[in-house]
Amino acid sequence: MSNYRILLQYEGTKYQGWQKQTSSDNTIQGKLEAILTKLEGEEVSVNGSGRTDSGVHAYGQVASFHLNTVISPQELLEYINRYLPEDIGVISCVTAAERFHARLNAVSKIYCYRIFQSQLPHVFERRYVGEYLEPLKLDRMEKAAEFLIGTHDYQAFTSAKKGKKSTVRTIHSIRFEAVGEEIRIWFKGDGFLYHMVRIITGTLLEIGSGQKEVESMKEILDSKNRQNAGFLVSAKGLALMEVSYDS
Amino acid sequence: MSNYRILLQYEGTKYQGWQKQTSSDNTIQGKLEAILTKLEGEEVSVNGSGRTDSGVHAYGQVASFHLNTVISPQELLEYINRYLPEDIGVISCVTAAERFHARLNAVSKIYCYRIFQSQLPHVFERRYVGEYLEPLKLDRMEKAAEFLIGTHDYQAFTSAKKGKKSTVRTIHSIRFEAVGEEIRIWFKGDGFLYHMVRIITGTLLEIGSGQKEVESMKEILDSKNRQNAGFLVSAKGLALMEVSYDS
Repeated sequence: MSNYRILLQYEGTKYQGWQKQTSSDNTIQGKLEAILTKLEGEEVSVNGSGRTDSGVHAYGQVASFHLNTVISPQELLEYINRYLPEDIGVISCVTAAERFHARLNAVSKIYCYRIFQSQLPHVFERRYVGEYLEPLKLDRMEKAAEFLIGTHDYQAFTSAKKGKKSTVRTIHSIRFEAVGEEIRIWFKGDGFLYHMVRIITGTLLEIGSGQKEVESMKEILDSKNRQNAGFLVSAKGLALMEVSYDS
Repeated sequence: MSNYRILLQYEGTKYQGWQKQTSSDNTIQGKLEAILTKLEGEEVSVNGSGRTDSGVHAYGQVASFHLNTVISPQELLEYINRYLPEDIGVISCVTAAERFHARLNAVSKIYCYRIFQSQLPHVFERRYVGEYLEPLKLDRMEKAAEFLIGTHDYQAFTSAKKGKKSTVRTIHSIRFEAVGEEIRIWFKGDGFLYHMVRIITGTLLEIGSGQKEVESMKEILDSKNRQNAGFLVSAKGLALMEVSYDS
């Protein structure tokens, strides 16, 4: 039995996110498992580095799975790509250490949120950007973002109900990039809660446009209350860019 | 009555090209005329700088039309964009001289053909590139392209049947650009015949991969026979980038 690690890209537009659902196979994980289960002749479980929500894209999702089938990584890559729809693609495939697990061994992740700031149509980018027309002050957003760096309880920035699972995470950096009529926000952290990047982005937009004070970011974080944070920005502007592992 | 000039972008994937067809309104021109005819209350004809084929994209198509309706260019832009599907967009709108005609006054056009050279999936570019896996020698393609520069009868490079219309055109330049795993070919000329850019591209690919000799380009041009030229590359790799006018 071999353990395989794949690097995946997908346009999330048509999918109900990464995670397989019992009621539908319209998920990235579902598509992969169906192809691998057919190859293997029995059920194969695919572990992604983490879930991406419905409509979210990936330039660098990582997944791992075990197969008894004897097949080279290159042949496996070609086999999977032959059956995947064209909005999902395997970019690389390698054999991994027996104990490698794409989610459990992930050390950090980078997400990028793209915000389009013009009323003009954006025909070629429309599937990949969120829209926000209010003028934004990047320096306000940068200052507010500093309150979020480090290890914190991000309960205020998730749509998940408070449960037994920890809502403590570490954000390493939040960086801002202005590209033409677009602002890109890069998030690097050890992991992100359900909707966390999109709610932080919405909060940053409300601060950047002056609807919220810069210092409110600290109060929102401390309050651990979702009601205090900003709006949930649309999924289509978000993409998982990179997942890092030790060694 | 005012004459308007608009700059348009569209993703051609879902459309049967620019030109309105009697049997279908699934064309760019058809969509625009329907919107403007509704605004005007009587039939409006929209003149494009030229036809783009089914599946071909545009980053800088230009069109012109007359309206009796009193409306500012900015209001008109917003009105049209409100009713256009999101894969077509008006980027700018200005009033033009009474006699301005987007096709008759066009002086030159720039097209770009993108060729993806890898077997790996190209999830985010799949709608905008043609695929060609044979290794290509750009210096061979550059030399062959030189035979086409200038004013010539390009009958060999069009799918249109020989008729009364002139097949003489002027190509100002053909330039090659290597971008990662992609080759882009830029064509500038006073106008292009039906399928001309795509058949020239197919011929250049056959020369670049060694299937045809560099010098064969001159023979094909002189033969004025479509049978001698290369294959018709797919529409999705082609985009109309820019149309130029005097003054």
